[in-house]
Amino acid sequence: MSRPAEPRIPRPAPRGPHGFAAALFEGLVAGGVREVCCCPGSRSTPLALAAASHPALRCLVHVDERSAAFFALGLARAARRPVALVCTSGTAAANFLPAVVESHHARVPLVLLTADRPPELRDWGAPQTIDQVRLYGDRVRWYAEAPCPGPDEPRIPYARALGARAAAAAAGSPPGPVHLNLPFREPLEPRRPPAEESAAASPAAATGGTPPTLRASTPAPDSALREALGAELAAARRPVLVCGPGDADAPTRAAVAAFARRAGWPLLADAASQLRRGPDAGDEGLVSHADALLRDARFARARAPDLVVRLGAPPTSKATNAWLSQHCAARVVAIDPDGTWADPQQRVALHLRCDPAALLGAPAEEPRGGVDPAWLPSWRDAETHARRAIRSALAKEELLSHPHLARELGAALPEGAQLFASNSLPIRALDGFLPAATRSLRVLANRGANGIDGILSTAFGASVATAAPTLLFVGDLAFLHDVGALAGARRHARDCTVVVVNNDGGGIFHHLPIAEQGDEVGFEELFATPHGLDPTEIARGFGVEAERVGSLAAFRDALARSLAAGGVRVIEARVDRSADVALQRRLWGEVASALRSGEP
Amino acid sequence: MSRPAEPRIPRPAPRGPHGFAAALFEGLVAGGVREVCCCPGSRSTPLALAAASHPALRCLVHVDERSAAFFALGLARAARRPVALVCTSGTAAANFLPAVVESHHARVPLVLLTADRPPELRDWGAPQTIDQVRLYGDRVRWYAEAPCPGPDEPRIPYARALGARAAAAAAGSPPGPVHLNLPFREPLEPRRPPAEESAAASPAAATGGTPPTLRASTPAPDSALREALGAELAAARRPVLVCGPGDADAPTRAAVAAFARRAGWPLLADAASQLRRGPDAGDEGLVSHADALLRDARFARARAPDLVVRLGAPPTSKATNAWLSQHCAARVVAIDPDGTWADPQQRVALHLRCDPAALLGAPAEEPRGGVDPAWLPSWRDAETHARRAIRSALAKEELLSHPHLARELGAALPEGAQLFASNSLPIRALDGFLPAATRSLRVLANRGANGIDGILSTAFGASVATAAPTLLFVGDLAFLHDVGALAGARRHARDCTVVVVNNDGGGIFHHLPIAEQGDEVGFEELFATPHGLDPTEIARGFGVEAERVGSLAAFRDALARSLAAGGVRVIEARVDRSADVALQRRLWGEVASALRSGEP
Repeated sequence: MSRPAEPRIPRPAPRGPHGFAAALFEGLVAGGVREVCCCPGSRSTPLALAAASHPALRCLVHVDERSAAFFALGLARAARRPVALVCTSGTAAANFLPAVVESHHARVPLVLLTADRPPELRDWGAPQTIDQVRLYGDRVRWYAEAPCPGPDEPRIPYARALGARAAAAAAGSPPGPVHLNLPFREPLEPRRPPAEESAAASPAAATGGTPPTLRASTPAPDSALREALGAELAAARRPVLVCGPGDADAPTRAAVAAFARRAGWPLLADAASQLRRGPDAGDEGLVSHADALLRDARFARARAPDLVVRLGAPPTSKATNAWLSQHCAARVVAIDPDGTWADPQQRVALHLRCDPAALLGAPAEEPRGGVDPAWLPSWRDAETHARRAIRSALAKEELLSHPHLARELGAALPEGAQLFASNSLPIRALDGFLPAATRSLRVLANRGANGIDGILSTAFGASVATAAPTLLFVGDLAFLHDVGALAGARRHARDCTVVVVNNDGGGIFHHLPIAEQGDEVGFEELFATPHGLDPTEIARGFGVEAERVGSLAAFRDALARSLAAGGVRVIEARVDRSADVALQRRLWGEVASALRSGEP
Repeated sequence: MSRPAEPRIPRPAPRGPHGFAAALFEGLVAGGVREVCCCPGSRSTPLALAAASHPALRCLVHVDERSAAFFALGLARAARRPVALVCTSGTAAANFLPAVVESHHARVPLVLLTADRPPELRDWGAPQTIDQVRLYGDRVRWYAEAPCPGPDEPRIPYARALGARAAAAAAGSPPGPVHLNLPFREPLEPRRPPAEESAAASPAAATGGTPPTLRASTPAPDSALREALGAELAAARRPVLVCGPGDADAPTRAAVAAFARRAGWPLLADAASQLRRGPDAGDEGLVSHADALLRDARFARARAPDLVVRLGAPPTSKATNAWLSQHCAARVVAIDPDGTWADPQQRVALHLRCDPAALLGAPAEEPRGGVDPAWLPSWRDAETHARRAIRSALAKEELLSHPHLARELGAALPEGAQLFASNSLPIRALDGFLPAATRSLRVLANRGANGIDGILSTAFGASVATAAPTLLFVGDLAFLHDVGALAGARRHARDCTVVVVNNDGGGIFHHLPIAEQGDEVGFEELFATPHGLDPTEIARGFGVEAERVGSLAAFRDALARSLAAGGVRVIEARVDRSADVALQRRLWGEVASALRSGEP
């Protein structure tokens, strides 16, 4: 894949706006920033030049600010470090908002650097001048507006500290977006320094001094917190561990799995929890078919828990959420290192703000004694029934479907790959049908605000953070929503196969009650929105290799080819919308039947 | 052009969320709304169904909320009436922000209806739930959050009045965006009414009563205001009328032109002022080459005005703006029906808030007496020199360029056509090189915040407001920024030819001082951003007919074919970026030489 050479530029002398911008990026680099997504503009000239000239920074240029921001979000999430964004003044900054909202809710560190006109031009009809002050409202962790750097007063120590503080605030607890509004007066171009000054100097030497640093300790649980959990554990006879979407790292995954194993608890692992795939996913307590199982009302009733320990975001599965809210007698404990109140059903009785790995690795009270000995086997047997029922039912199906694709991705993606799932049907299909396996697979999704905007950009951004292949599993509507991201794909994305499930519209709406009213309410036009467009032809229009498949065998071949070839490629999987919905319903029926037949 | 049948739906009985939504749309219709751009979603079900079922409303469905909002903006601007937008909860609403900012600054009436989750679900980790309260900040004319309509208390009179008030606030003075945040609880689907109730009833009958109305008088000037202008006119010896971008209607155009004619004033007509083209554009005082003329420092100095009367937004031309700010002794009077302080140079001495047609049609003091008799002829002669110099210089040029295209559009577009100009180079090229003519041409542009986002969507929206052809003149970067709009183009846009000037990057940056520093600052990668993409292939990927031209003759043929064929078509005009910039500079030089040679 060809990639244009990145500009390496002699550092401008540390004066005026350019000195300010150079010092700002020094601070950002000290705070952990390594990538800057730059959108072209004039007012942002000092920022673009400073970012491009810093040896520790990689500059990624995007035309569309909305795509740029989602790209940065994907990269920051996958790399687990703050990514900076630069845009010019005007509606450019407004285009960042969707990704800002997602990063706020999903706790992804971003530093938004919006160039602005100086205060005297604002609200006087000047072009490309909007009110950027606190543009993102309460949706950022920190906001600051810098003073306009004068030609001979770049305020170096301030700019450096500002950058370091912005990066620290973005990476804080919880991580999230930080907005710096940065006004600049003309001239925006660097004044050419005399020859002797332009000799490449080290960043620190160029401005003198170093940025401040912040060290935060991890939130380790104290003994009171351990005892609070211990008391809950001691009383439990029918406990479950419910792991929702999250980006659990290796120590957390190991500690959680070890706890469930020692305790003999069922562990309901969301597809995006990072606990369904990997070395510990072979444990007998791992439940990967909760969505199908809990759709069966009898099963859901019979499995009334008395203690639920929740990690990560609320589960993707509607059935799991409904089951959790049905059993009001169960105590619900949520463990969250950021202590957010993510509990839309208001069911949590005890919020524990601490590192889950540290807490579950050594609770005050080892669980076990009181747990009903029939409890874990009853889940394990159900999981086995569900797995077999789904596998054998799918084997008989001719038509390509979301469940087929979800299973095939699980089978085909190599160790350590990243699977980015779009919201709407793809994440639900994965949650319902991606089987547990001991091969590692990192599953990412924008589950902060669950939008279908910016999905391609986010996945492309995530692809840059790893040398392993990334696969995006996306529907046709989300593909069209962010189709402009294809314009930068060949330049910016690394290995990323985009699997577009094309069912010509929004299949998710078929799962809502409105679908039953069909033509009477204009269902197709208003909800399903068929478009008749051809993702393969669209991708090719952007110069991206693409192919169309209509069968599982063809999909398998295309996926293998794409993974072998690397780069950015699109596979359009044609799926019949109604048949797909009918199949999913049939599979749930098969699981219910299997549960019946398996009963004593 | 095939267009799917629009859903015609039996009106739901006026209960719960559906009664509320039906009454809301009654109010909106009473306030002048005729079109609703709907983005598919679940939480917005009551709004989508109510919009689709109202016989007076046309429902236009868009997948991408950013595109939808710019489409609505274009339609509202061209039709001069408020357009409603519907989206679901979550980042969907955030995607409206760029167009909200533009409509705020450009004074275009939009009513944003954002469905929301009820308050008890907000900030508790519920999916697709963000903080939508005052999401657009101070950028809206009015904000209200409705209560969640209960199953049996739809609050009909409130919802009806809310709709009427929202439409009135959007269409007020100045017009702009209005945001209604509308929470709904499940069930979101209409309960099926008994058979006898579902018989189609008239909207008023369905809910009883009628919405309130608001009548506002036009801001007619009183005698004090007339005298204030009269005093300025009486003293003027070297006055100019400067008409910036605006949407002057026929009476305003006629009154302004008649004033200049009677008074013997030069009228500097911005390309987007609506005064450069049409029956009055043959007047001897009309100056359409101010941009080229005022780039000549000697000419600009020699034409020091003593009175400037400004209409519309600040001029597009940087040269004109520089000239206005050079002559500090000149009095500047701004006439604006909305009385905004659009004066980034803070040069205006007198702001007159009134209808310009009424004021200039009959000022207290008829101007004339004091005007220097050589003043108007000196402008008229310069205009003639500039016109001839540009025409003859362009006739000798082989390579296709922005100036060629601007002139050709002026020559080829039929009476009454709409020309939508993108920001960046296209609007500047039109302003510099679109000659005056007596054939009418409506020139539109997003000059509120001057963004390059949402340009295709805005033009497609504008195309829906008229039976005449619309032409979009857009650069390759703005085309790529909103390329997703092509997904809906075939369904929604009317006759719209998209002329993409493809110079493989941002030509505008070549006009900035940074360009002189070239490779040294990474100019190509950071500013010009060449992409190597092919707009023709991209358009074809979306099923839109497209062709590529490289010469003026080929462009002329392609344009004639497209106008004859109708529908949505793309013409990619390949332009060499550096040669294009060099040509524009050469033309300015030719104009300067012609002025010298024409001097006594």
